Amino acid sequence: MKIHPSIKRFVDILSALPGIGPRQAIRLAFYSVGRGPSFQKELADAIADLQKIGLCKQCFYIQTSGNGLCEFCGSDARDQGTILIVEKETDVMSVEDVGSFNGRYLVLGDVRKNGILETDQKLRLKSLKSWIEKEQGGKAKEIIIGINPTTEGDILAGIIAEEMKPFAKKVTRLGRGIPTGGEIEFADKDTLKSAIQGRS
Amino acid sequence: MKIHPSIKRFVDILSALPGIGPRQAIRLAFYSVGRGPSFQKELADAIADLQKIGLCKQCFYIQTSGNGLCEFCGSDARDQGTILIVEKETDVMSVEDVGSFNGRYLVLGDVRKNGILETDQKLRLKSLKSWIEKEQGGKAKEIIIGINPTTEGDILAGIIAEEMKPFAKKVTRLGRGIPTGGEIEFADKDTLKSAIQGRS
Repeated sequence: MKIHPSIKRFVDILSALPGIGPRQAIRLAFYSVGRGPSFQKELADAIADLQKIGLCKQCFYIQTSGNGLCEFCGSDARDQGTILIVEKETDVMSVEDVGSFNGRYLVLGDVRKNGILETDQKLRLKSLKSWIEKEQGGKAKEIIIGINPTTEGDILAGIIAEEMKPFAKKVTRLGRGIPTGGEIEFADKDTLKSAIQGRS
Repeated sequence: MKIHPSIKRFVDILSALPGIGPRQAIRLAFYSVGRGPSFQKELADAIADLQKIGLCKQCFYIQTSGNGLCEFCGSDARDQGTILIVEKETDVMSVEDVGSFNGRYLVLGDVRKNGILETDQKLRLKSLKSWIEKEQGGKAKEIIIGINPTTEGDILAGIIAEEMKPFAKKVTRLGRGIPTGGEIEFADKDTLKSAIQGRS
């Protein structure tokens, strides 16, 4: 059936967002129309507000202060020579919640299914290398690769490790094994193998 | 961890939307920040555009023309005496896609889990009754109840049928039975019972 052009426009934009399908986008459109103009204004304002946020020029997490850096890259209390490379901003949040990492980050962006680095991701790695050359005398203390341990993530982690080796005294990966609360009986072979290799 | 106030604002509004959880809202916020101001402007504009849309004063589907009516209520080609009561706007779209209904609608709004009519839903039924009294001489030709056949939907459908009986020559419900492609072997008892009763 014909669909109202304003609804269609909204649905087209929304369903291009990660994790939102066309059906959910339509439901959101009708919900938003049903809630009326004041709600729509509130939502549009919140989005406009996002325009104020810039990305940290070093790690691509969100900027907090006027110096172009995030709260981690801009902090003297953090060990700037230890860099954790993650895929997503939410990974940074998860690691920070644990509170046991005191270095800085590099947000690489979502790993694509093909296991190949996107142009944008290559640029981010390149900017890390230049920063290490300039600020860390060519070699950082440690680069930790925190790419999710999926099949394509593993391929990518190998590529990145190879690329970053000349720029750090040590290149490591996050530990793998049986998660807390998990059971050996139900662990897949890869996980169990990692758990045995990584025993301590 | 601390979260940027603009992100928090966006997440608070978005996670109140149906089907979006706080985790997805955070992901959408970061995605939107990553895409940059031009994308955010596009999204905010699309939402502002929704403000132009009004609801049909008769059936509460979306208005299309300047007369305050939707494309169905405002059409002479449609049988205005036959009214299909549905829960959602997307139900209207689904029925229209089939193309075998030529009456008008009443969009009631989502049925709550408690099986009780909300104030807003009562008002919509009331407005239908007044319209029938004014435009259909007190009795419409037929009222079809198209509430989803869930446990709470069935309770509500019973209540609505009772309420609308004085306002229509006939009050019916959408047919129930084994869906096309379904198998008798796997049909639940209620469905099979409906299929036997509704045989034709």
